[in-house]
Order: sequence, then structure tokens, then C-alpha cells
Amino acid sequence: MTITLKKDALVSRYKEVRLFTEQIVQPLEVEDYIIQANADSSPPKWHIAHTTWFFERFILKEFKKDYQELNPQFDYLFNSYYETIGPFHPRHHRGVLARPSVEEVYTYRKYVDENMVQLMENSNESEIDEIKSLLEIGLQHEQQHQELLITDIKYNFSQNPLFPVYAPLKTSNNDQIPILFKEFQGGLLEIGHSGDDFSFDNERPRHKVWLEPFILANRPVTNREFLLFMEDGGYKKPEFWLSDGWAAVKKFGWQSPLYWRKENEEWMQFTLSGEKLLHLDEPVCHVSFYEADAYARWAGKRLPTEAEWEVAAEGLIPQGNFVENQYFHPLSSLEEQKSLFKMFGDVWEWTSSAYSPYPRSKPLEGALGEYNAKFMCNQMVLRGGSCATPSTHIRATYRNFFQPEKRWQFTGIRLAGNV
Amino acid sequence: MTITLKKDALVSRYKEVRLFTEQIVQPLEVEDYIIQANADSSPPKWHIAHTTWFFERFILKEFKKDYQELNPQFDYLFNSYYETIGPFHPRHHRGVLARPSVEEVYTYRKYVDENMVQLMENSNESEIDEIKSLLEIGLQHEQQHQELLITDIKYNFSQNPLFPVYAPLKTSNNDQIPILFKEFQGGLLEIGHSGDDFSFDNERPRHKVWLEPFILANRPVTNREFLLFMEDGGYKKPEFWLSDGWAAVKKFGWQSPLYWRKENEEWMQFTLSGEKLLHLDEPVCHVSFYEADAYARWAGKRLPTEAEWEVAAEGLIPQGNFVENQYFHPLSSLEEQKSLFKMFGDVWEWTSSAYSPYPRSKPLEGALGEYNAKFMCNQMVLRGGSCATPSTHIRATYRNFFQPEKRWQFTGIRLAGNV
Amino acid sequence: MTITLKKDALVSRYKEVRLFTEQIVQPLEVEDYIIQANADSSPPKWHIAHTTWFFERFILKEFKKDYQELNPQFDYLFNSYYETIGPFHPRHHRGVLARPSVEEVYTYRKYVDENMVQLMENSNESEIDEIKSLLEIGLQHEQQHQELLITDIKYNFSQNPLFPVYAPLKTSNNDQIPILFKEFQGGLLEIGHSGDDFSFDNERPRHKVWLEPFILANRPVTNREFLLFMEDGGYKKPEFWLSDGWAAVKKFGWQSPLYWRKENEEWMQFTLSGEKLLHLDEPVCHVSFYEADAYARWAGKRLPTEAEWEVAAEGLIPQGNFVENQYFHPLSSLEEQKSLFKMFGDVWEWTSSAYSPYPRSKPLEGALGEYNAKFMCNQMVLRGGSCATPSTHIRATYRNFFQPEKRWQFTGIRLAGNV
Amino acid sequence: MTITLKKDALVSRYKEVRLFTEQIVQPLEVEDYIIQANADSSPPKWHIAHTTWFFERFILKEFKKDYQELNPQFDYLFNSYYETIGPFHPRHHRGVLARPSVEEVYTYRKYVDENMVQLMENSNESEIDEIKSLLEIGLQHEQQHQELLITDIKYNFSQNPLFPVYAPLKTSNNDQIPILFKEFQGGLLEIGHSGDDFSFDNERPRHKVWLEPFILANRPVTNREFLLFMEDGGYKKPEFWLSDGWAAVKKFGWQSPLYWRKENEEWMQFTLSGEKLLHLDEPVCHVSFYEADAYARWAGKRLPTEAEWEVAAEGLIPQGNFVENQYFHPLSSLEEQKSLFKMFGDVWEWTSSAYSPYPRSKPLEGALGEYNAKFMCNQMVLRGGSCATPSTHIRATYRNFFQPEKRWQFTGIRLAGNV
Repeated sequence: MTITLKKDALVSRYKEVRLFTEQIVQPLEVEDYIIQANADSSPPKWHIAHTTWFFERFILKEFKKDYQELNPQFDYLFNSYYETIGPFHPRHHRGVLARPSVEEVYTYRKYVDENMVQLMENSNESEIDEIKSLLEIGLQHEQQHQELLITDIKYNFSQNPLFPVYAPLKTSNNDQIPILFKEFQGGLLEIGHSGDDFSFDNERPRHKVWLEPFILANRPVTNREFLLFMEDGGYKKPEFWLSDGWAAVKKFGWQSPLYWRKENEEWMQFTLSGEKLLHLDEPVCHVSFYEADAYARWAGKRLPTEAEWEVAAEGLIPQGNFVENQYFHPLSSLEEQKSLFKMFGDVWEWTSSAYSPYPRSKPLEGALGEYNAKFMCNQMVLRGGSCATPSTHIRATYRNFFQPEKRWQFTGIRLAGNV
Repeated sequence: MTITLKKDALVSRYKEVRLFTEQIVQPLEVEDYIIQANADSSPPKWHIAHTTWFFERFILKEFKKDYQELNPQFDYLFNSYYETIGPFHPRHHRGVLARPSVEEVYTYRKYVDENMVQLMENSNESEIDEIKSLLEIGLQHEQQHQELLITDIKYNFSQNPLFPVYAPLKTSNNDQIPILFKEFQGGLLEIGHSGDDFSFDNERPRHKVWLEPFILANRPVTNREFLLFMEDGGYKKPEFWLSDGWAAVKKFGWQSPLYWRKENEEWMQFTLSGEKLLHLDEPVCHVSFYEADAYARWAGKRLPTEAEWEVAAEGLIPQGNFVENQYFHPLSSLEEQKSLFKMFGDVWEWTSSAYSPYPRSKPLEGALGEYNAKFMCNQMVLRGGSCATPSTHIRATYRNFFQPEKRWQFTGIRLAGNV
Repeated sequence: MTITLKKDALVSRYKEVRLFTEQIVQPLEVEDYIIQANADSSPPKWHIAHTTWFFERFILKEFKKDYQELNPQFDYLFNSYYETIGPFHPRHHRGVLARPSVEEVYTYRKYVDENMVQLMENSNESEIDEIKSLLEIGLQHEQQHQELLITDIKYNFSQNPLFPVYAPLKTSNNDQIPILFKEFQGGLLEIGHSGDDFSFDNERPRHKVWLEPFILANRPVTNREFLLFMEDGGYKKPEFWLSDGWAAVKKFGWQSPLYWRKENEEWMQFTLSGEKLLHLDEPVCHVSFYEADAYARWAGKRLPTEAEWEVAAEGLIPQGNFVENQYFHPLSSLEEQKSLFKMFGDVWEWTSSAYSPYPRSKPLEGALGEYNAKFMCNQMVLRGGSCATPSTHIRATYRNFFQPEKRWQFTGIRLAGNV
Repeated sequence: MTITLKKDALVSRYKEVRLFTEQIVQPLEVEDYIIQANADSSPPKWHIAHTTWFFERFILKEFKKDYQELNPQFDYLFNSYYETIGPFHPRHHRGVLARPSVEEVYTYRKYVDENMVQLMENSNESEIDEIKSLLEIGLQHEQQHQELLITDIKYNFSQNPLFPVYAPLKTSNNDQIPILFKEFQGGLLEIGHSGDDFSFDNERPRHKVWLEPFILANRPVTNREFLLFMEDGGYKKPEFWLSDGWAAVKKFGWQSPLYWRKENEEWMQFTLSGEKLLHLDEPVCHVSFYEADAYARWAGKRLPTEAEWEVAAEGLIPQGNFVENQYFHPLSSLEEQKSLFKMFGDVWEWTSSAYSPYPRSKPLEGALGEYNAKFMCNQMVLRGGSCATPSTHIRATYRNFFQPEKRWQFTGIRLAGNV
């Protein structure tokens, strides 16, 4: 590839990813950009600005000669958690920032985009090589925030009694296929990322793991199945729950997955297209790790380890119900017949693996080392992406992670077991 | 006055008060309307809607035949605290409501205004008499929210590191006159409201009180004076403080009044016109009752009781630095020579009186009885209005009340003592 | 009185009061001395030591030449809240102190007692005069802690599922007389303490108050009457409650007075003699100010102000069911026929008066000024003493005070109203 | 072994373990038995009773015909966390229980012991076989509480400004040997317990793991070494810390390990023999996982995984500084020359492994399944035992676990690294 083609490809990918973010927030009113309805989520405006700051801070300020910040205070306002860069605005106070206005944030975005394109276009080959991987991190980072935009908008809307609608309702209406368990041999296998394609530092290096033979469900658990657990007193019997899980049930008063509401004996579910009747054949969604784990124990099974999941997913093409489908909801639809359905897309699948470093892994140098490594405690690994994940963002080795009590992501359950 | 003139006067006063609210929020961006930076304050949008709801709920729905609500859910969203009317959106969650949008709230406002004008215009004399006092309560209520809009916008802006500016800076620059104490005889006196002019139920009935002779300062305490207290270790010596006050100093880490910040050995003060150098001759402002009480003890004086304050204010014309002046800040300026300065306007003056019912007082009937009476516990009375109070809203008998630790209102100190 | 007789009287009174404290804790096991079941109450051991420290700190260390503290660390451990004396062990951590052991605390008590007696016996007339009033404060202080010992032991025992018994059950079984309201004229009257008898600084000076005519109930509200309020949805209807009171109902989940428990449709009440069936003709007890106020509003009456109460009590002999009776519980029994029953003893009566300084009152000099004055905010006045109050400790002018949500004291309700 | 010998051995081991618990609490005053100075620790009295309850509940009530509980309420009071058995007294309220008295608890203990001995003596061979493993669990459980007694007494004493002394000071005074790293090959190895000796369900089954080559320090990190980290700003630089760890530093205000206090430029350390000068050559102790992890990162190393630790420990004789030594403190002393010192005893060593189930592991049936399995979330594995661990309780496969912020156990650091 010539240097010009290379640059064109970079610029074009940059613009495409950045544009998609703007498309995601296109249905919002100005007012919607400001809301932070809980401490986990962030205001849409903040996502728009923070992803921009990421390019400014890690690329423009490092590599663009004489780059002038549009507003030096943005470094404080839009740094998320990079302690080694400097102090930052407290996360739970992001929702008190009316200013910069939405318009000013778009001006900031445009300013940084123009500078980024200039930088790419004016770089020589060695300079391009230097920024290429940072640029890719920036874009992957932006894609993560695309997913967070969807989940945070959903949470914000759910907290408003007017139940605003983000997108028109699109549904599938397939029956669910029976649950079956596929058997895997185990043995001395490898997981983790290798090769030159992009991956995060936490996916590397590829390394050996020993697995006992195991079975994995052909599809995620459905609402219908989860209701059986509920009807059997699932939320009332401590014997199904981890100790911390049972404490969460009591602390938060959980009686169903997030976004469910019973009205006149019928279960309703809040979605990005408003509240609708619960569809029984859709994958159960917005459950915490604790609920996933309790369900599995009730079902006489267990959650897969992340190594089991990855071994099963290896070689599968990462196709599925991703954000580009614009369902913004897991689907009952099942594509062609195959042995493992919905490994990618629809719902993130909780694994039984605590998020921890791979053997001999090395975090990135400098502040970007904080990106993934410092969260390796008290979080559980999720795999496979969801209906809010960009399709080009996911892969079999991808490790997502959240605290075990979180429910506002599109998180579901796939059962596993011993042979 | 003919019925037509009477109606015209009502309609014209209604429109005038309602318009003034809109003038107050005129400098805001859409984004600013959404913010609730702490649990005491409310988003400007909420004030705009709640004052409207007040007329809808207590007048239109009671008196206008076939009145249709624009949106029945607004009854839940914009009821502030009237328990007897029904459930309401939790106060501390007002800041999660992006919708109804600002535009929709103005549509609601316009809709109610049109209905109100129609109601007034189509009422006969006896109907007018019926709604007149409710209307006046609604307008007085709106004026209270005009003040809250100023104080809440100020708090919201102060929490944004960009320090947005609400209004251009206007200052006075007078030196302060010396503090003097005027002597009052006391005896068997009367306080409280009588007559037909509007007053809240908590100001009535006029009743006898016995007062010992007392002295009252000719003006509020200044920043210069308060700094002496601070330099003498005022915030570090428990002997000046009430027990709960000292606990508040430690809990909140108070080291100065709210909105003060030390930069390079100079005290800065956040105002609605941005941060500026502290003006030493302005009345000290944004102090809690605890700070006012501690200052007075340090100064060898005490705060006045509300009866003492009212006796001293009786007969004075309620003139001063009110919101119409558009300073939005207490002033150093002192008008013509007189014995008591700034009894009205500039800063609310903490009294030593707990907010409690007057002898033989009667709360209004029905839900409006909740307006004032149910707060008669754990709050202290303030008198005289502030630079954020509408000039037509205040009078000598007016009783404002807040919890003793609150500081976001324009609250200051006037000293009193025994003879 | 000769100096010798004077000294003898002092010593004898000192010994008597001190001995009575020890009699109160006599039924306790060593283990019981250590418990602090909530932050309001203190471990019995702490009371035993703190009352001792009071004499050591304010008398022995000031007046006894060459006095040596038994253990200098006790000054830190047993100072309750005197900020001007120095730092002290945090109140809510009193329950983590196994040491000094109970035996060591009694040794401390004995050591201080011996020194006190020596001091009194070796003082000349002018010295005696100097310490006399401090001594009386110390003894009155000790009597307050005698009451607190009873209430704290009750609370501690109530938190133990084994329901320990402090004293054998003694009951009265009288029917209640009908409720009647006695009328008072009001006018320009006087309240507050005058004369040479002991009184706390907060009871002084005697001063004029203007009272409108009022009525006062002849006896406290009974359990039978309070049950009517409950059966009428008293704890479920916000219209009866102050705003802070309703918040307390929801926060604490109040559904009845403290220590009530429903078992098989019968109300049980925990007492210092174990749990027993609720006696309907006893005064209702262990209600907060909020409950008292809500009950009064429900009953179409109000609570008396402290001035009304005092005017009504003036001239009555302070007789009643006090701690020496060893009921440790309010009684249904009513003595001879009279116009006002149980003004003293049985239950403290909540007034509608916030605890605040009397006109021209002066707190004691020095650290003892903290005794009463610094609590004059956010507390309500109670009058009349209870079944846990020493009989020689109470008088018509006595002002007790607690926060409006507290319920672990023996607190009840007497209704008042306007004429 | 004949059945008689078998029974004698059982009875004798039972008595020995039970007696040792009583020896541990022998230095306590009655008062000390009651204290629960934080929610993690329990009052000594509770440990004494709970370990007794364990035998009563899981053995006597199941296997002893016509067994009568001494007090049926003890089932509620002394159940720790077995949800499937029934409701239990809340953990953080264990410190409000004065009753049953210490003496009554010993009576309970004696009653259960007598019944247990009767049961063992009257059982036939098949009955013995039936209870044998439960008995062993009960004794191992008791040993765990022996360690907790030591750590909880230490914490309780540390919170008392009088610094009570539990045991006379015994010290060693050896210099520390240089730190060296021993290399291990890794490969496909096995960890976990096999064979008939006692092990907990969480140690089984023995299973394959793949390990990369690694290095392990020959001894734990010393106070001297940890001070270097502190002097280098260890507690002030976020770059060394996990995100949750840094949050803990700020939340708890950590500036040193627990029990350290600086006085006049010298570090003091609270021990069970009172406060003493920090011994620089002793293993650093009472650090959280977060501190261990941060130290390792600062040192350019990492913590070992639990598999690495176990592989290194396999074959070593579990000798060391255990509770029987009566130092109650980690020692500077190093026994004979060897390649790995102090793998057992002195301090528990934090591993980088989250506590999670072994492949194909099976929790015990019934309520005892709650013993270990339900804690497999948000906790980290520790290995090797401490100076508070009974010597017969520990083994190479033993998995201890605590939340990463806990510091009141005797927890230290051993470094590992990659080859």
C-alpha cells in the first residue's frame, strides 16, 4: 500500500468511526445530552467530548507540532480516570456540567477532527507508523463509548416517568430453539490474541491453558427460562446465591432483571423504543453476574470460564445482532441452523472468570497502561459483545469486564457444565 | 373598582409576575435548565414548570369547567411536596429529567397562562372573589421561586469549573459606615400580620409578645468584619459554636462562607457575574445560621429574635437592593443617612428564632396547608429579603425559614444584644 | 448552720447521690456494663466513670491541692463533650472499650469519692462556698445520668433477643379517668427559675411571657387513645405529620411507639421487667416529638408550649411516679382526685417549644457553659420528669431537651389547645 | 485400629482442639469477651459460642438421639451465616449481646462437649464413620476461629487508647537475609488436594494447570523494604495502584500498614504485647491485597498466583512460626539455611488469584456447602498460614481468602516474577 493509500485509509476509517458516534446521538434533544441518572453512566455530552479529548491528549498534544488546545480546562473536564495525567472532574459530578454547551462540544469535536486529519495528512511514513496504533486505540476506545452511549441513554430514559423513545420499535418474532449442550474436549489449549490485528493489551499474549472437558449451551438463556427461575422463588432463596449476590438482592431489592416491571400480572420491559410486553423468546438481558450465577446454580449448571468461552468461539465468524442493526435490543431471531447461536452480539455473556492479567501480559506504557490493567480486581469477564456493540469492535479474544452487581449493560447468560 | 377593572388588574398582575420569571431565566442556555447540582436546589426547568403546575392544580383544576390537563403526568413530575395531593417525583431526582424538554415546558406554561387568563376574564364577580386569594398565593409562590431560580442558578454555575456568567458585573464601591447599635425599649408589643393585604398563613395572626429592652446593629456584618473572626480562628475554636454547628464545621470542612476561595493569599468570591476579588465592605453573605450564631458569640453579641427584628423593622419602607436592581449580589452602597440600613434587601438576616407557629395561627385548609406549616421544626427564621428577592414580595412581617446549615441562599448577619 | 453541719450535710448528700447510682446498676452483670446498642445511649460503665470524671475534672483538679489523677488517660476517655477541655473519645465508640474493667472503674470511683470527701472535710467556710455550687451541679449531673442509665439499660436489653430482665415486674391496674381540659387565662406572666435553690443556667432568669388563654389536658394520652390514632392510619397519613416527621416515619419504618411489638394480634411492650402485654390505661410512652405532634394534630389539639406547661405546673408539688418507686415504667395508677394528674413523673411531656435561650440568660463561665447552652438548636423542650427521674431532681422550671426523633427516653404526650 | 482406639483418638483430638480455644482466651477479662470493635471481627464470646453451636447444629442435632438444646434461641444467636438453616442475628450486632453471659456461654460449651463425648463414646463403628468427617470439619472450623480470636482480640485492643496487653513480649532479633529469587520451570503441573487426609471442599479436586516459568522470592518482604516504598511516595502515587486500591487509599486515608503509628519520627507498631518500636527485619504485616499489589508493582515484580505458590510449596514441611509459638507476631528469625523461608507461618501471603472454584469442584452437600463456596467472588486467595494459625491446620493446598481491602489478619507479601 502506498503511503497515500495508507493515509487515505486511516483518515477514512477515522471519519467513519467518529461519524457513527454522532449518528448514535442524533435522536437526542439538547436536554438529553446533560443527564447522568446514576454514577455508572455518563451524560451523552460527556461521551462526545471525552472521546474527542482522548485523541487530543494522546495524539495531538504528543505529535502535532504547535498544537493549541481549544480550551485548556477541557483536559480537566474530560479526562475520565487517567490519574497519571493529572486531576480530573469527579465521575459522579459529570451531570452537573451544563457548560460547555452541546454546541461548544461539537465545536471542540470539529476542531480536534480537523487537527487529526491534518496531522494524518501531513505525516510522513515513519510518523504515520508512530501514531497508527494510538489512533487505533482511540478508535476502539470511541467504539466502546458508542456502546456506553446506548446503555447510558437507555438508563437515563428509563429513569424518566415519561419514558422517552430513542428509536422506533423493530422486532423479530421467532420461537426459541430448544436448549442443547455442545461438548468440548478440553486439553492443553491456547487462548489470547496473537498476530498484528488490533487487540487490547489485556488480550495478550496468547498463552496455554489446560481445560477439562466441558459442555456449553447452544444459545443464551431466554426470558421464558429465567421466569421459571423467578417462579421457583429464585430471588427469595439464598441457597442459589453467592454471599455477595444475596447481599445485593437484599440491598437493591432485586426481584427481576433491570427494566422489568409487572403491570396487571403481565411483565413489561423498558427498551430504547419504550416499554413493551416482555418477549419470552428473547435472551434474558440486564442481569448482573450474581443473577447469572444464581440462575446457573438453580439450573444445575454453571457459567463458563472465559477460557472455555474463547475456545468455543474460536474460529466462529463474529456475526450477530450488533448496534448497526438498530434493534438496540437482543432478539429472538435465530439465523441459520448451527451448533452455537448468538456467541456474538445480542447480549454480553457473563463468565465465571474474575478479570485478571494473562500470564506475562504487559500493560501499555505510560498513561494508557491505566486503560485496562488497573481494573483487574473485583470485576468479572464478559464475552461476545451485545446488540449495542459495533460489529467491527468485537472478536473471540475480546475481554469486557464489569463489577458483578452491574446491570445496565446488555448482559445475559450462557450456561456451561462439566462432562 | 368595577368588575372589569378588577379583572384587568388581576390579569395584568398575573402576566407581569409570570413574565418576570421568564426574564430571570432569559440568559440561560437550554443546557442550564436541566442541572440540579445539589439536593437543595432544583433545575431551572423544574421551577418554570412547578410554578405553572401550582396554578393548574390549585386553580384551573378546581375552578375552570372542563379544564383538560396538557399532560396528566405533569401532576406527578411537578408537584413539589404536597403529600395530600398524591405521590410525586423525588426531589433529589429532579435533575435526571431531560424531558419534558425546555420547549415543551414553555408550551405547558403558555397553555396554563392562556387558561388562567380565560378563567379570569370569564369569571363573574363572585367567582373572581373566590379565586382571588388563591391567585395571589400562586403569584407570591412564583416570586419565591424567582428568588430560588437566582440562588439555584448561582449554585449550579459555581459547581462548574468553567464558572459560567449569568449577568454582567455591576458594582458599587462605597466604604462601610461604622457599626452602631440602636436601642429599643421592648415591653408588651405586637408582631404578625393584620389587615387585608396579602400575607402567608404563617405571619398571622397579629399577637402580643413581651420584649426586654434590646439593641440592634445599624447594618449587617461586613466581609471585613467576618474576616477578623476567621483570622481569630473562628472556624477552629469550638467555644464559639453550637454543638450541631461545630459538627457541621467538621462534617462539611467549612473554613469560610460559601463561594469564597483563597488564591495566592487573596480571597476570591464566586458571584453570578463570575469570580471576583472579595469586596471587604459588602455584607457577608452565604453563611449558615451556625456561622451567623458563632460570629455573634465571638463578637460578644447575639442574633436578634424574630420579634425583635420585626419590631425594629415596623414602619420602615421595604426599600433596598432587590432582584430588580440586577446586582444579584449584596452591595456595599448605603443610601441616605438613617438609623437602620439594609433591613430589607441585600441579605436575609438569620434570627435566633426557631420557626414555629404563632399563637392561635391556622394553616390554610386542604393541601395548601402544607405550604408553610409542615416545616415548623428544625428550621430557623430569616427576615428582610435579599438581593434575589422581588421587591413586591417582602414586608416587615415576612417569615422566611431554612435549616440552620444551609448556605446557598443570600443569607447574612445582623447583630443584636441586651441593654 | 455551723460550718461543720454544713460540711456534714454536703458530704452526706454527696454520698447519698453517688450511692444511688451504684444501686441502679446493682442488677447488672459485668457484661451488661460494656454494651452501647446505639449511638444515643452509652455503656453503663461509661456512665459510672463519666460522672466520676465530672467531679475530678471540675472540682478536684481545680480545688484540691496536689491532687493526682488515678489515670491521666481517663480525662480523654470519660470527657463526654466538653470541647474546651480537650479532645475526647468519640461518643459512638464508647462501646469498644473493654478496659478499664468494671472493677477498675469502681476503683476510680472510690478514689475520687475519697478525695472528694477529704476535700469537703478539709475546706474552710470560704472554700466550701466556692465549691458548693459546682458540687451541686455535679450531683444534678449525676442524677441526669441515673436516668440515662435506666433508659440506656432498657435500650440495650431490648436489642438482645434473650430479653434480659432488669427488675421484677410491679404493676398498677387502675382504669383511666376521662380526659378533661383545664382552662388557663393567660396574660402577662412569668416563667423561669428565681431564688437560691439549685437550677440549671438554662432555667434562668425568670422573665415575662405573654400567653393567650389556653387549655391543658388533665392527664397524659394513654395507650388506648394512641391505638385509636394508629387504627385510623396515623402512621400512614402524611397529613398529620410535620415534613421532617413524615420523613422519619419512612426512614425508620415507624409503625408504633418504640418497644411495641405485635404478636398474634396482640400488642406487646418491652419493659425493664421483660416483655408484657400492652396495658391500655398506661400513658403512651417512648414516642418521638414527631409522633406526639402528629397525634395532637390528629386529635384536633396541639402540644403545649413550654411556657404554658410551666404556668400550669407552677405551685404543684412535684410528686409522682419517679425512679425511687422502682416501677421503671409509667403507671395507670392515679392518685387522689385533682385537676391535673401526672404533671411530674411517669413520662416526660413533649412541648411545642424549640429549645432556645431565655431572654438575658447567661451560660455558666468556662467549660461548664457547654453543659446546656450549646445544644440550643434542633432540639425540643420536654417537661415534668419521668418514671426514670430521681424525685429530687425535678421542678416546674426544669427544661429537658432532645432531638425530635428520639424515642428511647420515657417520653409521652399531654394535649393542649386554644380557648 | 480397633473401634475403641479409634474412638479414643477422636475424643482425645476433640478435647485437645476445644481446650486450645479456651487457652487462647484465658488472658481475657470478662469485659474483653463482649467487644466487637469493627464489623469484620466478632466478640470473643461469640467465637466461643459459635464454634460450640457448630457441633451442636451439624452433629448433635443430626445424630444424637433425643438431644435437647440447652437454649433454642442460641440457634439464632450463634449461627454465623448459614442462610439455609434459618435466620440469624446480624453480624454487625454481635457486639450488643451482653447475654448470654460469659459464664453461661461456658456452661453451653461444657454441655455440648459432654454430649459430643457421649455421642462419640456410644457410637458403633458405622456411626463413627458417619460423623467422623463432620467432626473433623468442626475441629478445622474451630481452628479457624482460634486464628480469628487472635486477630479480633488484637483489633479490639488496638481500638482502646489504654492499649491492653494480651501476652508478654517475646522477640527474636535476627537480621534479615538478602532477598533472592528462586526459579521454577512451570509446565503442565497439578495443584489441589488429593488423598484421604482432611481438606476443605475448596481445595479439591487435584487438577492440572499450565504454568509459565516463574521466580519466587526466598522470603517475605520486610518492614525495612516496605518503608522504602513508603519513602518513595508509595501511598501518594496512583501509578502503583489498582483503581479500587487507590480508591481505598483515599477512602480509608491509608498512609502505612495497619497498626503503625509515627511518634517523634519513629514508627511504632501495635502488637498483642502492646505498642513497640517497629522491627525493620520482620516481615511486613497487616497489609491489604491492594498494598501488597502496589508494593509489588513498585518493586518491578508481581504477586504469585495461587498455583505458583502451591507448586513452590509442595513437598515443604509446613513448619514455621505458628500460634503455638505464642509470639502472636511475625518474626525476624530465620531458621536453618534453605531456599524458601517462611512459606508457612508468620504471615499469610496474598496471591494475585481471585478466589474461585477449582475445575469440577463440588461444594459439600446441604448447609455446609455454604462454608466455602458462596464466598467465591470479590475475594483474593492467601496462602501459607500465619503466626496466629494453629500448626496442625495448615498445608500447601490450603486456600484462605479475604476481601482485598482487609488488613486485620496477619497478611504479608511474597514477591514473584516472570523469567
